[in-house]
Amino acid sequence: MENELSVSLSATNIKEAIDSAWGKQCTVHAPGTVANLVCGFDILGLALNDPSDIMTIKLIDKPEVIIHNIDEFNLPTDPKKNVAGVPLLDMIERLDNQAGFEIRIEKKIKPGSGLGSSAASAAGGVVAANHLLGNLFSRNDLVQMAMLGERLASGVKHADNIAPCIMGGVTLIRSILPLDIISIPSPPLYVTIVHPQIEVRTEDARQILRKQILLKDAIKQWGNIAGLVAGLMKGDYELISRSLEDVLIEPVRSILIPAFAEVKYRCIEAGAMGGGISGSGPSIFMLSRDETTAYKVEDAMKKVYADTNISFYTYVTTVNTSGVKFV
Amino acid sequence: MENELSVSLSATNIKEAIDSAWGKQCTVHAPGTVANLVCGFDILGLALNDPSDIMTIKLIDKPEVIIHNIDEFNLPTDPKKNVAGVPLLDMIERLDNQAGFEIRIEKKIKPGSGLGSSAASAAGGVVAANHLLGNLFSRNDLVQMAMLGERLASGVKHADNIAPCIMGGVTLIRSILPLDIISIPSPPLYVTIVHPQIEVRTEDARQILRKQILLKDAIKQWGNIAGLVAGLMKGDYELISRSLEDVLIEPVRSILIPAFAEVKYRCIEAGAMGGGISGSGPSIFMLSRDETTAYKVEDAMKKVYADTNISFYTYVTTVNTSGVKFV
Repeated sequence: MENELSVSLSATNIKEAIDSAWGKQCTVHAPGTVANLVCGFDILGLALNDPSDIMTIKLIDKPEVIIHNIDEFNLPTDPKKNVAGVPLLDMIERLDNQAGFEIRIEKKIKPGSGLGSSAASAAGGVVAANHLLGNLFSRNDLVQMAMLGERLASGVKHADNIAPCIMGGVTLIRSILPLDIISIPSPPLYVTIVHPQIEVRTEDARQILRKQILLKDAIKQWGNIAGLVAGLMKGDYELISRSLEDVLIEPVRSILIPAFAEVKYRCIEAGAMGGGISGSGPSIFMLSRDETTAYKVEDAMKKVYADTNISFYTYVTTVNTSGVKFV
Repeated sequence: MENELSVSLSATNIKEAIDSAWGKQCTVHAPGTVANLVCGFDILGLALNDPSDIMTIKLIDKPEVIIHNIDEFNLPTDPKKNVAGVPLLDMIERLDNQAGFEIRIEKKIKPGSGLGSSAASAAGGVVAANHLLGNLFSRNDLVQMAMLGERLASGVKHADNIAPCIMGGVTLIRSILPLDIISIPSPPLYVTIVHPQIEVRTEDARQILRKQILLKDAIKQWGNIAGLVAGLMKGDYELISRSLEDVLIEPVRSILIPAFAEVKYRCIEAGAMGGGISGSGPSIFMLSRDETTAYKVEDAMKKVYADTNISFYTYVTTVNTSGVKFV
């Protein structure tokens, strides 16, 4: 992704791409993602193999977006109010309004779960459309378009769900302006997630953060993020585990998530390497080095939440290393 | 260094080590180091091939430290006031006061240069002594002892000069308590340094830092440190270069260093990948990917300082990958 510059398209390029896309359709699986990876607040995310949205797109001759939602979430079909719609409207402008899109979205990632539901819709739509168009746009372009969906969802153009959703694996967003996204190689990781069925609004979760922090806490945090990146790249599970510590965001945000401390304690007792709040919550994720442990961690999560009156889902999955998949 | 625990020594172990060390002496080259590696304030350092101190140590039968300084710096010979002395006094205690050390220090790294002069004395002394004693102590033990010298020098027990001095290469101090030091593999790096002959006291440089910082600046900083670690481990010079940015410390501390902005600008113009203040200054270091560029960078530094009335030294060297060397 580095050094990929946005190229302005010629009318000929656009016409050829649209002509070759006519009559075709493209179906993708757009994966859920974990952003704000513990000490990697705002900069580190990973893609999941489960859950993922299923999206099918085709070209239409008017410069508009027609959305069909095949789910029970009652999401808006007005493209200007839909997180998949806004990025596609941006793409249509870049296509000089020479075509539009009809898209069918089967949402499996529950909105508001903290598992990158909006990013999956936003990224899945533009990746599928770009595939139809013979990869007219660069990955950086796609991330830029998809971030418009994130801005609609949360008020902030952030890429730490978008980038892993598109690229797969663990991704670092070193910088948003200019956009600089780096794949971080990692050893196999199992991810256990519990999604308590309560609502935490991303805006609220952002609002309660302190704007000023102590330098000494920041030093701890950047020691941990450096350790986490080194641990992932070395495949050193012990180092990964030691580095999965967030002294800044988790202590503030975890108060919005019922039984957070108890879940975390029990999961680590069950063998998890560590974990924290997925995105801005309410889902909690834990990383394990093997499948057996990941299921033990799931049991621990279930036990804690069974004692509350809150209903919940759990997932045991792995890191999705390829990002949005074409079916 | 990970997972190395301090083992308490038995009287037998100590006696055997001392017996075998009698009559021998050990000479080491203890390298200069660059700490606070741009965005890696307090956590990242690297070792240099030039300059380095030359230290020769032997055992004596009284539990004390005798220091001979073979230089013009007029450093204290009272071991309680000497940065090499204090760590050796700690080692003597760990040896149950069964022996002492006589040490000859030929200081080549000018005290107060920002090139880890105190760390070289502190680390070189204990590494040499430990070599005499058949490696009785672990590397973690040595770092702990040497940090006592740093506390004497600056009031703070920090390890970001000590660790690279002992281990060589680029080292990450993820955490001081508990001590967690990680080697970061790196591609070949050339280092150009200018040491303007002015005094910046470490204590002063620490005092002017803000204790509170903005979360958004901290996020930039940990994006950069994550990028720098990834760039070093991938051998990606472009990524290293983009990540060599410090939005927090350099803007404050650089005001203590004459012509800092001009030096930096001219060095980058000459082809340096980036750089910043070495330690707490006043030395400025720049990284380059090849020797030719490193010498061009030196010329650029010389030109800027020739226009001031400040005398200065320059060095062109490489990363020392082995740390303290036995002669």
